Amino acid sequence: MSNSSSDRIAASLREWIAAAPPRAQLPSTRQLVAQFEASPVTVQKALRTLIGQGVIESRPGVGTFVRAIRTARPSDYGWQTAALGSLQHRIPAASSALRTTPNDVIALHSGYPDKELLPERLVRAAFARATRSEAVVSRPPVAGLPELQSWFASELAAITPAGLTAPVASDVVILPGSQSGLSTLFRTLVGAGRPLLIESPSYWGAMLAAAQVGVQLIPIPSGPHGPNPDDLDRAFAQTGARAFYAQPNFANPTGGQWSAELGDTVLEIVREHGAFLIEDDWAHDFGITTDSAPVAARDDSGHVVYLRSLTKSVSPSLRVAGLIARGPARDRILADTQAQAMYVSAALQAVAVDVVTQPAWSTHLRSLRQQLAARRDLLIDALREHAPAAHLDAAPLGGLNLWLRLPDDTNLQQLTRDCEDQGVIIAAGDDWFPAEPTGRYLRLNYSGPNPSAFPHASRIIGRTISAA
Amino acid sequence: MSNSSSDRIAASLREWIAAAPPRAQLPSTRQLVAQFEASPVTVQKALRTLIGQGVIESRPGVGTFVRAIRTARPSDYGWQTAALGSLQHRIPAASSALRTTPNDVIALHSGYPDKELLPERLVRAAFARATRSEAVVSRPPVAGLPELQSWFASELAAITPAGLTAPVASDVVILPGSQSGLSTLFRTLVGAGRPLLIESPSYWGAMLAAAQVGVQLIPIPSGPHGPNPDDLDRAFAQTGARAFYAQPNFANPTGGQWSAELGDTVLEIVREHGAFLIEDDWAHDFGITTDSAPVAARDDSGHVVYLRSLTKSVSPSLRVAGLIARGPARDRILADTQAQAMYVSAALQAVAVDVVTQPAWSTHLRSLRQQLAARRDLLIDALREHAPAAHLDAAPLGGLNLWLRLPDDTNLQQLTRDCEDQGVIIAAGDDWFPAEPTGRYLRLNYSGPNPSAFPHASRIIGRTISAA
Repeated sequence: MSNSSSDRIAASLREWIAAAPPRAQLPSTRQLVAQFEASPVTVQKALRTLIGQGVIESRPGVGTFVRAIRTARPSDYGWQTAALGSLQHRIPAASSALRTTPNDVIALHSGYPDKELLPERLVRAAFARATRSEAVVSRPPVAGLPELQSWFASELAAITPAGLTAPVASDVVILPGSQSGLSTLFRTLVGAGRPLLIESPSYWGAMLAAAQVGVQLIPIPSGPHGPNPDDLDRAFAQTGARAFYAQPNFANPTGGQWSAELGDTVLEIVREHGAFLIEDDWAHDFGITTDSAPVAARDDSGHVVYLRSLTKSVSPSLRVAGLIARGPARDRILADTQAQAMYVSAALQAVAVDVVTQPAWSTHLRSLRQQLAARRDLLIDALREHAPAAHLDAAPLGGLNLWLRLPDDTNLQQLTRDCEDQGVIIAAGDDWFPAEPTGRYLRLNYSGPNPSAFPHASRIIGRTISAA
Repeated sequence: MSNSSSDRIAASLREWIAAAPPRAQLPSTRQLVAQFEASPVTVQKALRTLIGQGVIESRPGVGTFVRAIRTARPSDYGWQTAALGSLQHRIPAASSALRTTPNDVIALHSGYPDKELLPERLVRAAFARATRSEAVVSRPPVAGLPELQSWFASELAAITPAGLTAPVASDVVILPGSQSGLSTLFRTLVGAGRPLLIESPSYWGAMLAAAQVGVQLIPIPSGPHGPNPDDLDRAFAQTGARAFYAQPNFANPTGGQWSAELGDTVLEIVREHGAFLIEDDWAHDFGITTDSAPVAARDDSGHVVYLRSLTKSVSPSLRVAGLIARGPARDRILADTQAQAMYVSAALQAVAVDVVTQPAWSTHLRSLRQQLAARRDLLIDALREHAPAAHLDAAPLGGLNLWLRLPDDTNLQQLTRDCEDQGVIIAAGDDWFPAEPTGRYLRLNYSGPNPSAFPHASRIIGRTISAA
């Protein structure tokens, strides 16, 4: 048995295969032994070579077959350039906040909390119950499971002041996550080419949705205490905008919160201009120093459209959000969500309502608050000690992130790359600006895995800033 | 104890409540007894009256409180009319195919198969396994779980002829259902205001997505054997369209199938015009007389963009679809799906790949084919006997529906209403036409609940047509 003997058989078979129809069966080993006057071992070796080259495949007990797919020509999709045309609105590439990373790095870039901050036991128990329920094989009403609609409405109703009409279940539309809600809202309340006021900095996912819809973003300077009402009033007057997208509670990235007075002032401005406030209460469950106090609770005139997701606080696998809107806006939003996604999985809705109506959910939220506070303070202290050049304007009152100002001469791309080379993933702040960034910023997430590595990560960040 | 005594107490308390802050605690029964100089029974009666009126609420063991939400003024959302403006593209109301109905009617209108046709045992087992896996608390890659991407690719690869490059996992984008895929495709491959060729009749959900995006629909006459290639060629030339949306296999509503020759001809036409064929293989798992033979399997030049959903064949709770596209089109599609929905629940993806890779899945599909055949034939026979005026052009080769032509003088609205009055829900065919209907049609779904009622339903339909 020589190499050349099995090579000869393989070459000969390759010729036979090239002429054979796809999925043709090769002669049996016995037949090949006779045909090539070789030993079974030699024939087997030739076959193994061809299997390794992906030319044939063996189905144990059945035989050996020509693989259906043999070619892998380089493809030319050049014609698509003409068919697709240039992009009307360039959709930015995914933010680094969505990156998945190996376990051996310190990940401070993510937009999602670590598994240890999720109510994992509750989620698994709810999934187990849903598994035995009708939800896994049934189709819910288009606007959502009534019990989940009720829950979202009741959460806002519980903090609605006397004298105002609280939202009810039928004001709620259940969505497959808040990202699809943002697309729907920008499409239905703003529309392509029309202006949308947005805090700056603000959530990159909102800017992504805005780019997809093609709305024109008008940045309103904002910070830990929210925007200046005069800026907002002026922008409404100058642009004729009919909507303002904002995160009044624990804004991403700054972690700030509007005062009740600012909320009321913004409501007045929005009403004066006959406009909508699109309130993204993304961090409702992530209050640390204070609770989230949605502006939506203080409006019953349909001016506030309210969005709250359970994806980050319950489980990333739970793509479920509630949208509360009143008046004709709600009808238009429902029609759009239906054209977009038809309805949301009844199983996911059942799991969501199960989790948030358990007594243990409140217990979990209390413990989550303590954990977030500890993690926030640990990272703040570590940075203060090891990276004093990273300036924190104010400790966030809630949310998952620190928003740090760096010296103006910082090369952010270089810094993030250098940190990454040392195993620390950070997010450059530029993604959070709808227009040119007003400075060099970092967003660091303190809810990621392995908080005990925060001091080590801070040392690396501090050293890298100084070395630049 | 007189009625007037408890009424007097209730009236007095109502005044007190009107001035009280929300959630204020009422004096105890003992204090009220003293204050009103009444018996405890009379005070209790007054409190029960107020509880019944929703003004106060009792928390056992704690006390009685003013209900936070007391007002329900009629709201005036008139200002929204100006803010929303008129609709740029009117999104049609939901089709009757999405209606949920009580159990005591015979439902022939739905777009979904009955629970008894679903692989319920497999779905529950897969959910149970997912419950114990990481999927329920983790976030998948944006384009989808690699094993599910691989499965969608392998399904098409298995029928790719030799000589063509089969799709691979990285060509696949996992979507939250095919409806969102249609929106994405019309947005990325066509664009607002631009023409899209579409079979007529065709799936109403595609027309819904087209209306949402604002594309201009160009109807191409089609039937059980597909469109006339000359019509298609001419429409491409005349409109400059760059995309054709079609269901080559078991089209909804006709149930027809393109011949292999027609598929090749359409591919040639599409290539000549530098255009995309958007192939919606919605009924891939619902072949009856034949198997689905996707045109996408015969293209490796990126001209066919292929969409296949598992929602109808696995479970309506599984909002999971796979989209296969190659070249820059795939990148643009992925960017849009991300801006639209971020990613698809890892739990639902895990359940999907679990179900379709079980050996029992093939067994289920074989039994499903027999059940669909039996149901289809039962309804055809019953209609032939009891409703001969409903003309069936051709028995569907697959899918879930019969597409029946009625006499031209039929009043469809009247007919559907009259049938509904007699407990039979049917879908008027008008929803399936992108422009004016070319005749009076009914779409009857034979995969709904209770097939033994088909003869009874057919009698009612037949009688109602004759009576009109």
